[in-house]
Amino acid sequence: MNVYQGATEEELRRFQQKANEKYEKYQAENLNLNMARGKPCPEQLDLSNGLYNDIKTLIDENGTDCRNYGGVEGLPETRKLFADLLNVKVEELIIGGNSSLNIMYDNLARAFNHGVDEKSTPWSKLEKVKFLCPSPGYDRHFAICELFGIEMINIPMQNNGPDMDRIEELVKEDESIKGIWCVPKYSNPTGVVYTDEVVNRLAAMETKANDFRIFWDNAYIVHHLTDNPPRLKNILHACREYKNPDRVYIYVSTSKITFAGAGLGVFASSKKNIDYIVSLISKQTIGPNKINQLLHTRFFKTVDGILEHMKKHAAIIKPKFDLVLEIMEKELADKNIARWSNPKGGYFINLDVMEGCAGRVVQLAKEAGVTLTKAGATYPYGKDPADTNIRIAPTLPPIKELEKAINIVTVCIEKATLDKILK
Amino acid sequence: MNVYQGATEEELRRFQQKANEKYEKYQAENLNLNMARGKPCPEQLDLSNGLYNDIKTLIDENGTDCRNYGGVEGLPETRKLFADLLNVKVEELIIGGNSSLNIMYDNLARAFNHGVDEKSTPWSKLEKVKFLCPSPGYDRHFAICELFGIEMINIPMQNNGPDMDRIEELVKEDESIKGIWCVPKYSNPTGVVYTDEVVNRLAAMETKANDFRIFWDNAYIVHHLTDNPPRLKNILHACREYKNPDRVYIYVSTSKITFAGAGLGVFASSKKNIDYIVSLISKQTIGPNKINQLLHTRFFKTVDGILEHMKKHAAIIKPKFDLVLEIMEKELADKNIARWSNPKGGYFINLDVMEGCAGRVVQLAKEAGVTLTKAGATYPYGKDPADTNIRIAPTLPPIKELEKAINIVTVCIEKATLDKILK
Repeated sequence: MNVYQGATEEELRRFQQKANEKYEKYQAENLNLNMARGKPCPEQLDLSNGLYNDIKTLIDENGTDCRNYGGVEGLPETRKLFADLLNVKVEELIIGGNSSLNIMYDNLARAFNHGVDEKSTPWSKLEKVKFLCPSPGYDRHFAICELFGIEMINIPMQNNGPDMDRIEELVKEDESIKGIWCVPKYSNPTGVVYTDEVVNRLAAMETKANDFRIFWDNAYIVHHLTDNPPRLKNILHACREYKNPDRVYIYVSTSKITFAGAGLGVFASSKKNIDYIVSLISKQTIGPNKINQLLHTRFFKTVDGILEHMKKHAAIIKPKFDLVLEIMEKELADKNIARWSNPKGGYFINLDVMEGCAGRVVQLAKEAGVTLTKAGATYPYGKDPADTNIRIAPTLPPIKELEKAINIVTVCIEKATLDKILK
Repeated sequence: MNVYQGATEEELRRFQQKANEKYEKYQAENLNLNMARGKPCPEQLDLSNGLYNDIKTLIDENGTDCRNYGGVEGLPETRKLFADLLNVKVEELIIGGNSSLNIMYDNLARAFNHGVDEKSTPWSKLEKVKFLCPSPGYDRHFAICELFGIEMINIPMQNNGPDMDRIEELVKEDESIKGIWCVPKYSNPTGVVYTDEVVNRLAAMETKANDFRIFWDNAYIVHHLTDNPPRLKNILHACREYKNPDRVYIYVSTSKITFAGAGLGVFASSKKNIDYIVSLISKQTIGPNKINQLLHTRFFKTVDGILEHMKKHAAIIKPKFDLVLEIMEKELADKNIARWSNPKGGYFINLDVMEGCAGRVVQLAKEAGVTLTKAGATYPYGKDPADTNIRIAPTLPPIKELEKAINIVTVCIEKATLDKILK
C-alpha cells in the first residue's frame, strides 16, 4: 500500500501527533465496548420471542408427543421445512440440538472413533490427519482441529472462494488430507460467496483419500444484507453430479435466525451418510429436543416464513454495517492504510491493515476500551502469517457504541501504521 | 425352582392345555400393546406443562440473556438447584442439553480421543479397553460400549449392588479395565439400591488403571415409589474420602422429571474433572440451550419443588406397579415359575423366569400382540447367559392395557415353562 499517498516524513510525524492526541482522548473516556464475537443484538433476539406463543399442545402433525422420548432424526415436519430451505430431500437431512458447531464436532469425533463409513479406517488409527483451512476463516473450526491434533494447512481465500489450484494440487497427492472447512456464503470473516466454479471444482476434484469430507458450514445461508442476494450452488447436487455423492457434510443453524443459544442445528448429506450417522447417533442419544423443533416449525411454517423473518434481521443490522463502512471510508480511505470488505450478508466486515500491524491495532483498541476479536484468530493456530487481518463484528453493540468503537479502531489503525513506518 | 410344586406329568399337561387355551384366546384379540421402554405416560408429561408458562422475560437472575450465545457450564441458578439436589458444590457440576445419555457418550468419546485428563493416554491409542457391566443392566450403556469396541465383562448384580469381590479382584489386576457402568439407585432393571458398603468399596478399591472411571448413572435419584425412600451414599464424597477424588462421573437427568425428550442432562464430578471437561466442551459448542435451563429452574425453584413434583409422578405410576405385582402374585406365585422384584422406585420390575425361557416368553408375548423389551437386552451384547431375565416397564401403557398385557405375559410364562419341561 502506498500509505498516506507518499507523504513526507514531517507530514507523517504531524499525522502521528494528531493520531496520538485522538487516541489519548479516547483512552481517557474509560470505555468498555465489546465487538469480539458475531453475536446478535437483543433487538434481533426479540424478533423470535413469539416462538413460545403456540404451546397449547405439544403434539406434532403426525400425532407424536414431542414431550416424550424418541425421534433421533428430528421431527418430520421440521425436516421438511429445512429440506425445502436447503433444497435437499427430507431423508438427506436431520435436525439436532441447539448447536450446529456441536454437530460438526460430533462428525469429526465420529470420523476419529468409527470412520466416515462402515469400511473406512477410524482417523484415530492413522499416523497423521490433515485438514485444509481456507484463511482467514472461522476460529472455532480451527480450534476443533487443534483439539484433535489435526495438522491444519493454510489455504489463501480469494474473491471467489479458496484457492482451488492449491487445493486440487494438495488433495490429489496427500492421503492424510481428510477434509476442508468451508463457510461458502458470506464467508466468516471475508464475506466471500463461493462461485459455481469453486463449488464444482470442490465437488469434482480428485482426492487421494477416499474418506475426504468437505465440512460445509452454511452458517449464513439466509443472512442477507441486500434485496438481491447472490446465489450459492447446491453442493450436494454438485457432488452427486460429479460422482462423489458422499463427499460433503452440510451444516445450517437457526442460531442467528431465532435464538443464538436456543435454536436448531441442521445437518444434511447424502442419504448414505445420513443413514450411517443416524445409526451412530442412535447409540449416543434417545433423541433431540423435539419441542424446540416443533415450536420453530410452527413459528416459521414455510421457507417464505424464514425469509420474511430474515428481512427483519437485516433491517436491524444493515444500518450497523453501513455505519462501520461509512466511518472507515471517512477516516481511512484517503490514507490508503487499510482495506475492508463490503459484505452482501453474514456477520462480519473483514479488515486488512498494513503487514505486521493487526496485533498492535487490536492491542491498542483494547487499551482504549474496545475489545475486538483477537488478532490472528481467523488463522489456524491463531497465527496470521502477515499479521494483517482483523475481524469486525458489528451486530451486537448498540449503534451509538458501535460508532464510538469504530472511530477508536480507525484511530488505532492510524497510530499503529504511523508508529510502524516511523519507528 | 421347584415348578408347580412337583406336580405329576399328567397334571402338568393339564396346566399346559389350559395355558394354551388362554394364550390362543388372547391371540385372537389382535392386540397391539407396547411395554418395551421405560417411557413416562402422557399424564406424567402433563405434570410439567407449566414449564413454558413463565416466559415473559428470558433474562436470568444474573442479567444474562438466555436467548444469546454462551455459558458452556450452564446457567448459574440451574447449577445451584442441581448442586443442591446432588449435594455437591456448584463448581462440581454442569448442565447440558436434553440427554444425559449424550453426556455419558461424550465423556466416553472424549476419553477415547483426548484421555480422561491432560496426562492420560487417549483410550483410542490402547490395544484393548474393557468395562465392567453389572448385569442385568441398562442396554443403552452396553450399546455405547459395543459401538466403541469396548470389551464388556459381565458382573453379577446382587441385592446390595454388583458383586464387589469380583470387581475388586478384576480391577486390581487388569490395567485395560477402564470403567464400570452403575445405576446405583433403583437400578435398571433390578431396582436394587447400592448399599453404603458397596459405594465405599467402589470409591476405595485399588485399580491397576490410573484412568479408571465409574460411570454413575443416577437416573432415578428422586424417582421414589414409597414415602420413605432408601438413602444412597454420596459417591463423590466417598471418592474424596478414600483419596480417589477424580474417579467418578455422575449423571442425572430430568427426562423422567419433566419432559423425556426435552429435559436437562446434568453432569457432576470433581472440580478437576469438570474443569478439564469444560475446557474440551468449549471447543465443541458455544453453549447449551439456556432457555430450557432457565424455565426448569423457574418451574421448580428449589429441591423441595422437585421432590413435591416427584410425588405427583408416583401417584400416577405407583398404581401401575401395584397392578403388575398383584397380577403376577395372583397368576404366578403359587406355581413357582418366576421371581420378580418389588422396587421402591425407578421405572422397572425385574422378572426372572426359568432358565432358557426368557426369549421364548418375549416371543410368545409378541405373537399375542404385547411388545416387551427384547430378551437379553439387559446383558452385554444382548446375551443373557441363562436366558432368564425380562424387563417389565409398566409406566407408559394406560392401566387397562397394562392389565391385559401383564395377564398375557403371565400366560406366556406358563406356556413357555410348561412347553420346556414337557418337551
